[in-house]
Amino acid sequence: MLVRSRNPLNIGAAARAMSNFGFGNLRLVAPWEPSHLGARAAVGASQVLLNAQVFDSVAEAVADCSLVVGTSAVGERELHHPLHLLEQGAELMRRSITVAPAALLFGSEKFGLSNEDLSHCHWLLRIPTLSEHDSMNLGQAVAVCLYELARCTAFTGPDSAPVSASVVELERITQVLLETLCISGYVQSPGEAAAQEKIRRLLRRMKLEKGDAELWLGMMRQILWKTKHSGQPED
Amino acid sequence: MLVRSRNPLNIGAAARAMSNFGFGNLRLVAPWEPSHLGARAAVGASQVLLNAQVFDSVAEAVADCSLVVGTSAVGERELHHPLHLLEQGAELMRRSITVAPAALLFGSEKFGLSNEDLSHCHWLLRIPTLSEHDSMNLGQAVAVCLYELARCTAFTGPDSAPVSASVVELERITQVLLETLCISGYVQSPGEAAAQEKIRRLLRRMKLEKGDAELWLGMMRQILWKTKHSGQPED
Repeated sequence: MLVRSRNPLNIGAAARAMSNFGFGNLRLVAPWEPSHLGARAAVGASQVLLNAQVFDSVAEAVADCSLVVGTSAVGERELHHPLHLLEQGAELMRRSITVAPAALLFGSEKFGLSNEDLSHCHWLLRIPTLSEHDSMNLGQAVAVCLYELARCTAFTGPDSAPVSASVVELERITQVLLETLCISGYVQSPGEAAAQEKIRRLLRRMKLEKGDAELWLGMMRQILWKTKHSGQPED
Repeated sequence: MLVRSRNPLNIGAAARAMSNFGFGNLRLVAPWEPSHLGARAAVGASQVLLNAQVFDSVAEAVADCSLVVGTSAVGERELHHPLHLLEQGAELMRRSITVAPAALLFGSEKFGLSNEDLSHCHWLLRIPTLSEHDSMNLGQAVAVCLYELARCTAFTGPDSAPVSASVVELERITQVLLETLCISGYVQSPGEAAAQEKIRRLLRRMKLEKGDAELWLGMMRQILWKTKHSGQPED
């Protein structure tokens, strides 16, 4: 999944690497329109590119995925997420993909993924580059990640791997929790971006199973109902 | 080592991947002159590119190397060489490099390596792509090979092993949550054994980190406070 890509060559290169390593489902989030059209118009544009879906936001693009992984050069940015190097991260993704769709997010060439983008991610993946030259070309980063994801391993995950909560379920809990925290005075307003991102990240870090997500949602809804029926004035 | 590359973007991309993965010695064999100059003139041209050596022939370029490896998409071409997939080939190259310089040859974008080029090679390396989409972009192929070659060397990511929440912390959250659920009418009594166990198990399954446990406890305490100050009669 490419977020706000600007360079048509990079979009084309990402699609080509997907063909090379057997991945079919390319999603573009808010691509710079000329770059998207330019990539599609290029000679030899691949079927992957022609089939790419375009979304307005990361939230919509990952709605049907149960695992969302962001790529990051890290650098100086403060980390709010667990971080896995590519080899281990790819192993985790391979296991997850056997159960439900997973998304791998790449940010724009210049700015990478924003904090809002990252708040949708369960964890981050880092390609082990030299720290003094850690910024990779987008098309090359995609190729390296897909090569590692496509690597055959003797390891086969347990058959009884629990089903992870979907992103939609996590987002429902996030919203109910936010509303409750707002009524309780823990956050100022449910629309407050920093609070939203903090809660969204917290819930993704929990690696909730499907059944547990339903349990949380039920509990939080009941608590929300109760806080709404509070007759006391706030103090 | 790039042989007869034509696209300045690919030469620049190869050099960038070399910087990313810690390789310094780029050699260009008979590059199409404008592409070489174009790549050097590009904004942000790397030190690797500026230091690149130019040779007229593969023979001269590999003269000081004790191992010469060619990359090949193979396809229909008759093979006169032993062929290793990237993972095993990279392992062989790593061993060799500890003793003497080794060269990895990439051919031109359109024609790959010629039979004459290949005759200088000890063996061939193949990136495991799908057979029906086996032709990779040059810059991406370089990046994938160097990623694999650099694997297992001393690059270590940030030590991000999170500290798990203690049992005491989990139990505090459990109790606050139970009390809130009781006031909200979700459970009958905080002492109810089945509910206690259910919530306790739920919280343990979350594998909370220490910082997240503190966050949860803070949020749940605030919500509990709010539910306690509810003036409405229960219904």
